Amino acid sequence: MSPTNPVLNHHISSQFNEELRDVNTKFMTMGGLVEQQVASAIRALLDTDASLAIETQFQDNVVNRYETEIDEALTLILARRHPAAIDLRMVIAMSKANTDLERIGDEAAKIARIAQNLCEEGGSPRGYMETRHIGNQVRIMIHDALDAFARLDVDQALRVLLADGDIDREYQSAMRTLMTYMMEDPRHISRVMNVMWVLRSLERIGDHARNISEQVIYMVKGLDVRHTDVKEIEEKVQEK
Amino acid sequence: MSPTNPVLNHHISSQFNEELRDVNTKFMTMGGLVEQQVASAIRALLDTDASLAIETQFQDNVVNRYETEIDEALTLILARRHPAAIDLRMVIAMSKANTDLERIGDEAAKIARIAQNLCEEGGSPRGYMETRHIGNQVRIMIHDALDAFARLDVDQALRVLLADGDIDREYQSAMRTLMTYMMEDPRHISRVMNVMWVLRSLERIGDHARNISEQVIYMVKGLDVRHTDVKEIEEKVQEK
Repeated sequence: MSPTNPVLNHHISSQFNEELRDVNTKFMTMGGLVEQQVASAIRALLDTDASLAIETQFQDNVVNRYETEIDEALTLILARRHPAAIDLRMVIAMSKANTDLERIGDEAAKIARIAQNLCEEGGSPRGYMETRHIGNQVRIMIHDALDAFARLDVDQALRVLLADGDIDREYQSAMRTLMTYMMEDPRHISRVMNVMWVLRSLERIGDHARNISEQVIYMVKGLDVRHTDVKEIEEKVQEK
Repeated sequence: MSPTNPVLNHHISSQFNEELRDVNTKFMTMGGLVEQQVASAIRALLDTDASLAIETQFQDNVVNRYETEIDEALTLILARRHPAAIDLRMVIAMSKANTDLERIGDEAAKIARIAQNLCEEGGSPRGYMETRHIGNQVRIMIHDALDAFARLDVDQALRVLLADGDIDREYQSAMRTLMTYMMEDPRHISRVMNVMWVLRSLERIGDHARNISEQVIYMVKGLDVRHTDVKEIEEKVQEK
């Protein structure tokens, strides 16, 4: 894969090098697909594009297949190559992040399904401004998390963790706004509810991007920073 | 751990046997904790028990610590013992299921937080009957999935997959009922909304129990049955 990733070139066995590089390429391709799936789901919703909504749901099968293939490849590497140190951490991190990517794909498919329903009902409900805004931020988070993974970039990973905090705050605020819309005009409850599910999915996607970034820190520094406050993570990373 | 689990006794190295058994014991203990956490969260909600709700949220830290320790132990086993065949599959399955258990803990903490809010607001909103019913089923699913894991019981795992389909249908039906409540009496929108989030969490917990059961099938049969229809899984398992 990327020439900037030193892990993929340092092995005595060129066969092992190649296997790690192959699975890494697959992982990054899956990441790109998932990123695009999220973008399409949001676009389908905001542009009330029913055919894009349907297409985005089908794309989930491709993502699922990638998940299976990546796990298969990682298991073979574990069984045959007995990786150690950063190689082992890369395999473990990729196995965890693979699950997160697949879950992002699931959430994108859920958003696309809601988009399809809203297209059929017609009309543009409230809460789209919030969806566009949070949707854009979440897409950037996925992109940055994958970039951090590809370049073993801990600083970039830290920025994603910080961004997740912002998303959570904006999500809370958007939910309060939507709740007010519901109370003001109960005829729109069902539609506003759908937008709430979309926001919830976007918030979950942010969490998964955060998880992927935590795996980058684990891979590079050997630190398990899950369940740790961002400030504390920054300190730990600097000490190491 | 369990004498019924043949994987934990067949190694030439008694050290390896012990390591696998230790991590398995830890995993089952964590599973028991998580199961109890879900039960407490639902009880706190239904009995409007604020102190239980707070306690259940704190319990999440214990679960998180287990997750970290189990992953550490599994990484050491991979690095030192180079497990193969069913041993390797057990390590991989436990690593994946470990993430699912932790996520169940997260969802239980979310339910407990909502329970706490509802206690403070006072009064018992609609939708509790549905919550009790789905909550009970989901608890049984976690229990059965863990039991299947401990006993390498593929038939039990299959039953959990079937149960997840039931939960999904009951969840959809409960959500429709709650939507009706909202429209009938918009003054209760905020409260009913909270019950909806609880149901959503329960449905997610069911998905995680399903994931754990899929890992049991992977561990025992070497089959990756994620993203596969239950009927098709049953056929595949019988062929193998």
